[in-house]
Amino acid sequence: MSNPSLLILAGDGIGPEVMGQVRRIIDWYGEKRDLKFDVSEDLVGGAAYDAHGTPLHDDTMAKAQEVDAVLLGAVGGPKYDVLDFSVKPERGLLRLRKEMDLYANLRPAQCFDALADFSSLKRDVVAGLDIMIVRELTSGIYFGEPRGIFEEGNERVGINTQRYTESEIERVARSAFELARRRGNKVCSMEKANVMESGILWREVVQKIHDEEYPDVELSHMYADAGAMQLCRWPKQFDVIVTDNLFGDLLSDAAAMLTGSLGMLPSASLGAPMANGRPKAMYEPVHGSAPDIAGQGKANPIACILSFAMALRYSFDQGAEADRLEAAIEKVLRDGVRTADLLGEEGATPVSTSEMGDAILAAL
Amino acid sequence: MSNPSLLILAGDGIGPEVMGQVRRIIDWYGEKRDLKFDVSEDLVGGAAYDAHGTPLHDDTMAKAQEVDAVLLGAVGGPKYDVLDFSVKPERGLLRLRKEMDLYANLRPAQCFDALADFSSLKRDVVAGLDIMIVRELTSGIYFGEPRGIFEEGNERVGINTQRYTESEIERVARSAFELARRRGNKVCSMEKANVMESGILWREVVQKIHDEEYPDVELSHMYADAGAMQLCRWPKQFDVIVTDNLFGDLLSDAAAMLTGSLGMLPSASLGAPMANGRPKAMYEPVHGSAPDIAGQGKANPIACILSFAMALRYSFDQGAEADRLEAAIEKVLRDGVRTADLLGEEGATPVSTSEMGDAILAAL
Ligand SMILES: CC(C)[C@H](C(=O)O)[C@@H](O)C(=O)O
Ligand SMILES: CC(C)[C@H](C(=O)O)[C@@H](O)C(=O)O
Repeated sequence: MSNPSLLILAGDGIGPEVMGQVRRIIDWYGEKRDLKFDVSEDLVGGAAYDAHGTPLHDDTMAKAQEVDAVLLGAVGGPKYDVLDFSVKPERGLLRLRKEMDLYANLRPAQCFDALADFSSLKRDVVAGLDIMIVRELTSGIYFGEPRGIFEEGNERVGINTQRYTESEIERVARSAFELARRRGNKVCSMEKANVMESGILWREVVQKIHDEEYPDVELSHMYADAGAMQLCRWPKQFDVIVTDNLFGDLLSDAAAMLTGSLGMLPSASLGAPMANGRPKAMYEPVHGSAPDIAGQGKANPIACILSFAMALRYSFDQGAEADRLEAAIEKVLRDGVRTADLLGEEGATPVSTSEMGDAILAAL
Repeated sequence: MSNPSLLILAGDGIGPEVMGQVRRIIDWYGEKRDLKFDVSEDLVGGAAYDAHGTPLHDDTMAKAQEVDAVLLGAVGGPKYDVLDFSVKPERGLLRLRKEMDLYANLRPAQCFDALADFSSLKRDVVAGLDIMIVRELTSGIYFGEPRGIFEEGNERVGINTQRYTESEIERVARSAFELARRRGNKVCSMEKANVMESGILWREVVQKIHDEEYPDVELSHMYADAGAMQLCRWPKQFDVIVTDNLFGDLLSDAAAMLTGSLGMLPSASLGAPMANGRPKAMYEPVHGSAPDIAGQGKANPIACILSFAMALRYSFDQGAEADRLEAAIEKVLRDGVRTADLLGEEGATPVSTSEMGDAILAAL
């Protein structure tokens, strides 16, 4: 049997640096745990635009459709701000999400105990926090038509369309309920059913999937504005949150920041099962391309490495190996090893991107 | 000359209780400061539905158009959850906003020093915080057409439309720049121009109004997800934030919660100047109708009283009198007078809704 395949799209800014450390971890698994992967690499975002005039070449898109999992670094940078909307780095990422149909974006908001003091929130509000935001990723206002800037009378009007079908809501709801069963068994669904009809349909369909298929899971509904409030007030009330593409974008970023562990947070974007039973999948850190520190060996590779841990768990059924990698990272943090973004405490050992990789390999 | 006119719409839940204390403050201004108002009262929300089968009677709408300012309490409650979308309590509020064309919703997120410890954020992150969120209130996805739940093939689809014209963006941008000039002279505009064309137009128009009319104000742009993060990380970096209806809903609620002063925060919704030069205006607390504590004398009337202070400032050009009222409230808080929502510290004096009114009147 051939090895499972990985496509690495390191992207822009700190993407290539942090992905360099992920490669070392992948190699370690091949050598020490006999978990071998066929790894290929390609371009996305600004890097792809520079080479091909498009943020995602059709050949790269085709490769992404064929592999068992894509690992993505980060896209974007000030250099590309002047580009037309249609070729901005982000379009490469959005095309991958859409064409691979990665409808369930799993964003854990977890507070690493060793880092709880980095949060702007009080320690008792965040210490031990572990919630999972499931964001719908292939529909809603990100992709709905009509969209664009049009002439109307003697002025322009900017239009986007929020659009959700029942089946789009059903499948992401199932993802959330399945996850909840393996966690705290609680789902909170967020929308604005008090002002948006698409939110009314969202609430109704999530409730239906619950009642028909997951009556054992505890389900609640919250307006997204109240959800934003409650995340800031007492995030530990949540286990799994399920919400649409746009609300998920804001709420998961807020939740990530609250943990104080932003440079530490991974994500998984999952689609339907392929012929081999594995879901279509892309894994990427929640943080961006951080162009201000790119190329300086300052970036924290942990979010990207934890994204690979999610790949082990969700694509390759290697939960125990994912646990091993996560435990190694927790140990390194407990030992006070810190990249530049995590400095500030007494007694911490400042390290570069690759020294963090060294420390994690040593802990493994 | 006749007195300026006020229409009080106390609404549902704790609305009538907190508004009762506002009436006492209004009376005090009439007696002691010779600032007399012609006050009328009417129904909105669930209360209007119970009486007339609609959350806002046409006669009430007509009155709201005629008065100098509307004071609103709160709308909604579990009793009305079963109602059809078109007659839910919220529709009354949304109709007032839309038909009075109250396009600029001013939401101060201010941390009262005496209450900083109620925040889930660390004291140094929030103490002294004073930002102003200007939310567009009459357009965007709240009102855009087409909207609804439609049949499509053999399933339903929920649709809403985000829609902004240049002139809608221009006028709310001007409101934000004007406010900034009287504050810290800094505006941060938030959208998702990286994924939404309506966000591209938003960014472009805000920049144009800045360059042509307010080049002296410092302007920055931020994606709304990054904005949510930055509000949670270090909110003091902001002075005035301007954003659309939906982002403003989430971001202002998050910001309000961060201050730890949620039960304390007022808002003003302003439209174009009327014939008498005053803007169309409605003032309301940021908090909701809190049905769980309604009718028990537990509610905190301060947000509603501070909304009247905003009316003094923005509708009646009585900035000094607004300062007086705000100072009285700060004194009462410094003295440790606390409604039930604010209990928890040593040495606080627990009071009821009306006793809080007594204390504020005494401080005046
Ligand atoms: C880069 C951008 C297009 C993207 C989004 O808005 O989805 C990002 O913010 C994210 O959350 O992954
Ligand atoms: C009650 C509701 C319709 C309203 C809104 O979404 O605008 C509220 O959340 C607010 O922010 O004033």
